[in-house]
Amino acid sequence: MKHAPLVQELIDAFTCLPGVGPRSAQRMAYWLLERNREGGNRLSEALSAAMEGVKHCEQCRNFAEETLCPVCLDTRRDQALVCIVESPADVLAIEMSGEFRGRYFVLMGHLSPIDGIGPRDIGLDALEQQVKNGSVQEIILATSTTVEGEATAHYIFDMTHGTSVSVSRIAQGVPMGGELEFVDGVTLAHALRGRQKVPHSS
Amino acid sequence: MKHAPLVQELIDAFTCLPGVGPRSAQRMAYWLLERNREGGNRLSEALSAAMEGVKHCEQCRNFAEETLCPVCLDTRRDQALVCIVESPADVLAIEMSGEFRGRYFVLMGHLSPIDGIGPRDIGLDALEQQVKNGSVQEIILATSTTVEGEATAHYIFDMTHGTSVSVSRIAQGVPMGGELEFVDGVTLAHALRGRQKVPHSS
Repeated sequence: MKHAPLVQELIDAFTCLPGVGPRSAQRMAYWLLERNREGGNRLSEALSAAMEGVKHCEQCRNFAEETLCPVCLDTRRDQALVCIVESPADVLAIEMSGEFRGRYFVLMGHLSPIDGIGPRDIGLDALEQQVKNGSVQEIILATSTTVEGEATAHYIFDMTHGTSVSVSRIAQGVPMGGELEFVDGVTLAHALRGRQKVPHSS
Repeated sequence: MKHAPLVQELIDAFTCLPGVGPRSAQRMAYWLLERNREGGNRLSEALSAAMEGVKHCEQCRNFAEETLCPVCLDTRRDQALVCIVESPADVLAIEMSGEFRGRYFVLMGHLSPIDGIGPRDIGLDALEQQVKNGSVQEIILATSTTVEGEATAHYIFDMTHGTSVSVSRIAQGVPMGGELEFVDGVTLAHALRGRQKVPHSS
């Protein structure tokens, strides 16, 4: 005996989610069928609406339902200051900090030649255009501090060569609340190299 | 800034799945939107088809797309021998063992007065009817060996009082491949009490 065909198809479909194997998928399918058909229908509708309706902002490539996302449309934000991040989740993390009043450029990935992901795949041609037409004056590189993130940051820095755009990289160092004892050596080396002078208070 | 409304709705809908909190839900939503819209659409369709099309077998209460499930329709199986289990997953587990040629009765839960789950909620009125009209001759109680599973098994055993139905409980003992050293005391006590005589080979 096997699952009923509709149940089997549902289990197979669930395995397309990240971190969901056959057993979790079966648990999810059974759970919805046994206890929460309403939730299942709601998820079905939310999925089809999102897959259909969520596009990318034409300026910053973040998820948006219109041509431009709310951040790119916000005239109170400095549209010439661009923070470059790898994913929409990074945008949310920076917004939560409340520290940034510019706009974003979301790569939706990072350079990864081994996976065949080149500059065009992460929208760097569009970014180059924005740099060249003068709409960008300052760039903050906020890609991850992984090998790929660093390589992507370097590539974008090189891209701005010969323009008047000012480029900075977010500080790498000891996280707040971090005890030195438990911080890894590479991070500590970065923290030492990036040390900042403390001015004497007058 | 928050998520786009459609994205937020998708994240909220994902949290209705078991074991999925806000962060996993966000990861799933982003993953589908960024890399697998096809998978998202497929999941949406599988969900709505299953929520709509999967019903319960009128005889055994297992998931079925027709009035009766394939097991209850199978004339080669002994329809008078009924194995009582708590969930469709248990049916699959027993089918995988290849040991059973009767049919099932799926409770879709167990008695749990504290959660307000009584005999009717797990279909015991329907089972009683099947016992009374003589279509059941033998019952194997294969509910879990938890407190609730044992209580449910007892309740069903009491229900058959005064009928000619033969009732048995699946054996409780040391699992195959289990080293005695690592088996818990309650299981060992059950294994000793349920010991079976080994016949002398002639």
